[in-house]
Amino acid sequence: MDAFKPNNYLEELDPIEIVDLIEKSSLEDRIVIFNHLPAELSSTVFEFLIFSLQKEFLDALPSEQGAKLLNDLSPDDRTAFLEELPSQVLKELLKLLSHKERERTLKLLGYPENSVGRLMTPDYIAIKADWTVTEVLEYVRKYGHYSETISVLYVIDNQGVLIDDIDLKDFLFASPTDKVSTLTGDKFIALNVNDDQENAILIFQRYSREVLPVVDNQDILLGIVTADDVLNLMQDENTEDMQKVGGLEALDAPYMDTPFLELMQKRAGWLIILFIGEMLTATVLGFYQQEIEKAVVLTLFLPLIISSGGNSGSQASSLIIRALALGEVTLKDWWRIMHREIFSGLFLGLILGIIGYFRITLWSVFTDMYGPYSHLVAISVGLSLIGVVLWGTLSGSMLPLVMKALKFDPATSSAPFVATLVDVTGIIIYFTIAYIILQGTLL
Amino acid sequence: MDAFKPNNYLEELDPIEIVDLIEKSSLEDRIVIFNHLPAELSSTVFEFLIFSLQKEFLDALPSEQGAKLLNDLSPDDRTAFLEELPSQVLKELLKLLSHKERERTLKLLGYPENSVGRLMTPDYIAIKADWTVTEVLEYVRKYGHYSETISVLYVIDNQGVLIDDIDLKDFLFASPTDKVSTLTGDKFIALNVNDDQENAILIFQRYSREVLPVVDNQDILLGIVTADDVLNLMQDENTEDMQKVGGLEALDAPYMDTPFLELMQKRAGWLIILFIGEMLTATVLGFYQQEIEKAVVLTLFLPLIISSGGNSGSQASSLIIRALALGEVTLKDWWRIMHREIFSGLFLGLILGIIGYFRITLWSVFTDMYGPYSHLVAISVGLSLIGVVLWGTLSGSMLPLVMKALKFDPATSSAPFVATLVDVTGIIIYFTIAYIILQGTLL
Repeated sequence: MDAFKPNNYLEELDPIEIVDLIEKSSLEDRIVIFNHLPAELSSTVFEFLIFSLQKEFLDALPSEQGAKLLNDLSPDDRTAFLEELPSQVLKELLKLLSHKERERTLKLLGYPENSVGRLMTPDYIAIKADWTVTEVLEYVRKYGHYSETISVLYVIDNQGVLIDDIDLKDFLFASPTDKVSTLTGDKFIALNVNDDQENAILIFQRYSREVLPVVDNQDILLGIVTADDVLNLMQDENTEDMQKVGGLEALDAPYMDTPFLELMQKRAGWLIILFIGEMLTATVLGFYQQEIEKAVVLTLFLPLIISSGGNSGSQASSLIIRALALGEVTLKDWWRIMHREIFSGLFLGLILGIIGYFRITLWSVFTDMYGPYSHLVAISVGLSLIGVVLWGTLSGSMLPLVMKALKFDPATSSAPFVATLVDVTGIIIYFTIAYIILQGTLL
Repeated sequence: MDAFKPNNYLEELDPIEIVDLIEKSSLEDRIVIFNHLPAELSSTVFEFLIFSLQKEFLDALPSEQGAKLLNDLSPDDRTAFLEELPSQVLKELLKLLSHKERERTLKLLGYPENSVGRLMTPDYIAIKADWTVTEVLEYVRKYGHYSETISVLYVIDNQGVLIDDIDLKDFLFASPTDKVSTLTGDKFIALNVNDDQENAILIFQRYSREVLPVVDNQDILLGIVTADDVLNLMQDENTEDMQKVGGLEALDAPYMDTPFLELMQKRAGWLIILFIGEMLTATVLGFYQQEIEKAVVLTLFLPLIISSGGNSGSQASSLIIRALALGEVTLKDWWRIMHREIFSGLFLGLILGIIGYFRITLWSVFTDMYGPYSHLVAISVGLSLIGVVLWGTLSGSMLPLVMKALKFDPATSSAPFVATLVDVTGIIIYFTIAYIILQGTLL
């Protein structure tokens, strides 16, 4: 119990410091600390905790206390928490919510996963066009406490259709008797509730907004999304992409908080798939066994050639994956990308091919390790490098587009996947070129 | 000129639609469109343009018009634009600014690159603790127009030291005669002007804020940073990381906007470095030439073994690079990470080793391709896989930490770099194990 100090010590900390303290404590201490927090502080701290700890507390605390925590969470944070749970647990927890909160939660959970609907909060302030500025400010004073943000107010008509969003500051600058309708324009930006969350990121970024309204297909205002929620979402999406590009399934929790077996599960799956794919290299090399026996010197450059294909492929795929994620390119650009990458592949392949050629030619001046036909070997390696780098670049850039077209995540395991593909085909390219050039001499 | 339609058509578009139109037009059309924009719209459009187009316009427009554009930019956007320029051009452009704006700009540009200082805007509203709520609201009405955001107000003392930040809405809820001092608490979160921008991202994310104050070491308020600027910064940092992990230098512009030769420059550098590193595989394999001649069967599994090391290394490095970027782990955790990754490497290596062993054993039932000692070959491959995957995992997880300790970016070229490292050492591991096991039989 060395982490725990009396109540008044806790009150001096800010919520994040308490979160740090809790994360570093043992399970037992955590509960004690949490129980000692003043009521309103405990809600804030709960909101900042990572999912696994939130779940731990809800399991450990008496159900009235758990119910209070859940009911106090802001609707968007509650949705984020609940959507991580298995459906059985979810059902139990929904029972803890008040009737009103349960209804709101079920509504939010009703939107598809990864949709803007799951991200929004219904806590916004809606006003009518025929109100005066004074009436609006009165209304904000009365109801603003319950709203996630009041820096922007939303003008709706009697059917709930969004007419405009107006900065609170515009009301401060306006004359008290002005009608809201004198402040509305005819342009506003809104997210659609069924939009993909990634799309929301792009819109937020593009328009530099701090909060955006969410509407349905009939333009009826349903909620708002704030920039800080998008910030979190963006970090999560980027983490997922980075992990997928690295050739593993995205983790659900931070690296250190992921249990060992779960970590292995996320890593072993793709590693085995790639391993089985890579077994094809052994099969393909088996076909060339006779050639290898005749010209062992060829094997010396095998890793060099296939890794160059893998490296150029991983460059191309990470460029295209990122450009897709940022909306800089779309599927329609495939031909422009392919055109660009064919020239890139040729250019880069030529550079490596020339270096490779001179490396072998130069070495053979000092050593006869590469045999009497070292010059022909050098040409074979040089040409193979051009072919393999071109092929690596091309498949690295096209694979993410193919994945996207097939509705998969372009990031999924792409770099190692391209490397495996290029390894297998690179061997074929290498031995085919070598066979043509060395026929009658070494082969 | 088919993209251009008369003036009133442009006025119906929102700034982003105009930006789209400009990006799709030829250089000539761009200038025409831009010249036809109403004055205030052109500032907004200019702000949303990518750097290369901004520069193009400033070069093409008469200098009074360029001066107006620059002066109208908000200070943080202006800093972001100017810091991209070569110093000679920067000097020229600074001359176009009004005295006041030049002074503000030079101050912002005086902070180190990638520091919070470069990100902030000095347009905030500062108030004093002894003002009443009515005085504050009057002040906001008078000066709020020039401020980037007025959703949060900053209480400072006579020395300019930040005392607290207060939401504008709190003033709406307060009684008009209340003093500001009745609303201040003793806790606020501020960024330091010299902090790294990556740190600002973490703080924004952690505290779910829409705007944060920036202070110097004496706690004097210097400016504010808003969430939407952090959103842009975060996307840029993530793009950089993704590209570096993919084994190329980070691009300065979107993929499609990067000129071909610049794209080649960013890619060729690392590709050549990795290629030269990978040449070691040829050297190392040269040492084992005799063994290869005796046991060609060993070469069949060479790509399989070294690629498994590369894949496990790229998994580990992308996990650790991301955890470092998110602040989930720090250098101090190196021992815990190493401990974890030794077990991960053993576990994953064991899985691949067992699969590899059975693949060879099973195949040799149907074919004598692997020769009379296929069982010993299977054992060699299995054990090598354990060794190589363990080594790949370990170097993949430790290399980003080493990079960080040496003050390099952990993301720099790490996955291909680890792959190259593991290729070379993987060959040594494989042939050493094979030599021990096959001595007296095949070797």
